[in-house]
Amino acid sequence: MSLRRLGERGLIQRIRLDSERAPAAGVTVGIGDDTAVLAVTPGAALLATTDLVIEDVHFRRVWASPEDIGWKAMAVNLSDIAAMGGVPRWALIGLAVPEDTDAEEVAGFFRGLRGAAGPHGVALVGGDTSRSPAGWLVNVTLLGEHTGTPRLRSTAQPGDAIAVTGGLGRSAAGLAVLERGVTDARRRGLADDAIEEITRAHLRPQARVGEGQWLGRAPGVRAMMDCSDGLATDLGHICRESRVSARIQVDRIPLGAGVAAAADALGGNALAWATGGGEDYELLITGDPAELARLTLELPRSTGTALSVIGEVEADGNGIRWVGPEGHAVTLGAGFEHFRG
Amino acid sequence: MSLRRLGERGLIQRIRLDSERAPAAGVTVGIGDDTAVLAVTPGAALLATTDLVIEDVHFRRVWASPEDIGWKAMAVNLSDIAAMGGVPRWALIGLAVPEDTDAEEVAGFFRGLRGAAGPHGVALVGGDTSRSPAGWLVNVTLLGEHTGTPRLRSTAQPGDAIAVTGGLGRSAAGLAVLERGVTDARRRGLADDAIEEITRAHLRPQARVGEGQWLGRAPGVRAMMDCSDGLATDLGHICRESRVSARIQVDRIPLGAGVAAAADALGGNALAWATGGGEDYELLITGDPAELARLTLELPRSTGTALSVIGEVEADGNGIRWVGPEGHAVTLGAGFEHFRG
Repeated sequence: MSLRRLGERGLIQRIRLDSERAPAAGVTVGIGDDTAVLAVTPGAALLATTDLVIEDVHFRRVWASPEDIGWKAMAVNLSDIAAMGGVPRWALIGLAVPEDTDAEEVAGFFRGLRGAAGPHGVALVGGDTSRSPAGWLVNVTLLGEHTGTPRLRSTAQPGDAIAVTGGLGRSAAGLAVLERGVTDARRRGLADDAIEEITRAHLRPQARVGEGQWLGRAPGVRAMMDCSDGLATDLGHICRESRVSARIQVDRIPLGAGVAAAADALGGNALAWATGGGEDYELLITGDPAELARLTLELPRSTGTALSVIGEVEADGNGIRWVGPEGHAVTLGAGFEHFRG
Repeated sequence: MSLRRLGERGLIQRIRLDSERAPAAGVTVGIGDDTAVLAVTPGAALLATTDLVIEDVHFRRVWASPEDIGWKAMAVNLSDIAAMGGVPRWALIGLAVPEDTDAEEVAGFFRGLRGAAGPHGVALVGGDTSRSPAGWLVNVTLLGEHTGTPRLRSTAQPGDAIAVTGGLGRSAAGLAVLERGVTDARRRGLADDAIEEITRAHLRPQARVGEGQWLGRAPGVRAMMDCSDGLATDLGHICRESRVSARIQVDRIPLGAGVAAAADALGGNALAWATGGGEDYELLITGDPAELARLTLELPRSTGTALSVIGEVEADGNGIRWVGPEGHAVTLGAGFEHFRG
């Protein structure tokens, strides 16, 4: 059934029934009134973040299914809450689609949203729908809570070690495969498990929510943010906000699984993907070097996720220095920025 | 300067500087980190609402300036908080514009947002920007607080009187003038002050925030919502959510200033504008008939805004009956619904 036949009210009714089937903590009034009414945990700080996800800017329909779009729109917001060390709670969804969109595609979008949100206990509590004159437009606002001290971008100190969770570059490598086509990547000798690993990282990223809460409580961690725009851009934010600079040893940057193989097969630059590609949604932290060395052993034990020290915070204000194994300077491209994309 | 030259970071920096010039209550961390960190008033319920505003669906650039767009995107969300009787506090803005957009237009948009938000003490605490492949896309999420009992759509009771603030139809009349062109309306004899009144109502609606708080505390008020999609559609929501029906005496529906004159001059239907036009952002309430009769005297005294009793809630489930002065049935068009627009 097309949305033109189902109508806005029919659409909202479907979304609401799904939400009411899974009643959530802290939701006094959910979808269906002028606003949601929510009960914030006494003593907790409220966290709030919002992200736009737009067809042909953030994704292409030829390779992103409605479920992928919903999943990722939720995941990128979960990652922002993770980067504060917070607990994600409630989401509001803005969705505009062309009026000839099939209602089943919209249902797929909400399945994707709930698929990413569900494991973290996030409830859909409100939203807005509209027709769109051109393509899919999504806005997710996610509210979270923090009962301790949120980890900021502005609290790095000279002498801090810099570390990153997991591996970088998978999302950019996956995008490279999707843009060329999986068939072409396979023809160039890239193995199916590498293709699956990196395209999934691009289409269905996993926010480091548990890792963020764990690191946010760990002694010695000072600054934290998520790697959404690429290591170069995101570490640049920490440097600017904390009025420090950074030295990164490029040979210590952990490449995600499949990234080196994809670079070999496609003639791509694995280091450029890892530092400038963005959308890996790993966590970037700074903190006491001895404590961070200890956390590189403990985080994998507690969460199964690796933590790698990749450099250190310096006092002068000259941005990021990228150095090779012998300490020589290495030149890299910048991260992703809208309007200059 | 175009956004392509200014860049996303330059844009965010400008928005942030404006926000930091006006530090706001309850904002521990504002724009510039992964999420905002907010301090909810102890004991208050959190209210959350979100609205999409899309070029060529909700407005046309030929007659809506960037300031108008920003103003209205904020006002429609303020109206949702008003409809609960709540206090608006914090806003998150999603804005996507074509990359050749001039930075001055974006500045105008934020002036409009702040113009609508400022008088209510609402702070901009976060957001997201992106380029848009086609037209302006805006999403505003507004958070508010309520220290009492939020007024819902689902609490109307048979025997309640139904009342509405201010006057209806101005926004639809204003839209009719904007679509034909002000010059044509003037040529047809519509006075300048009527044109100004109704086009302003459409482009720069005033949310009934103070009135909502006042009515939300008033004894005898049971259900409340805002008239955003038109009286017919919105009262239909109350009927469905409360499992009641309604009888409206059409001659008691208050027409906004300039509406009758515009209908005469343009050959429009004032009653259709008032009941089906939408976007008037008046408040629709139900409650004890004797108390509401008293409130029609007291609300104007306290806030300067009229309150008119227009009908009553009935027990059976047959939707809305529209009746004339002699009690005969009157047939009206329905309100606005997306995808069926």
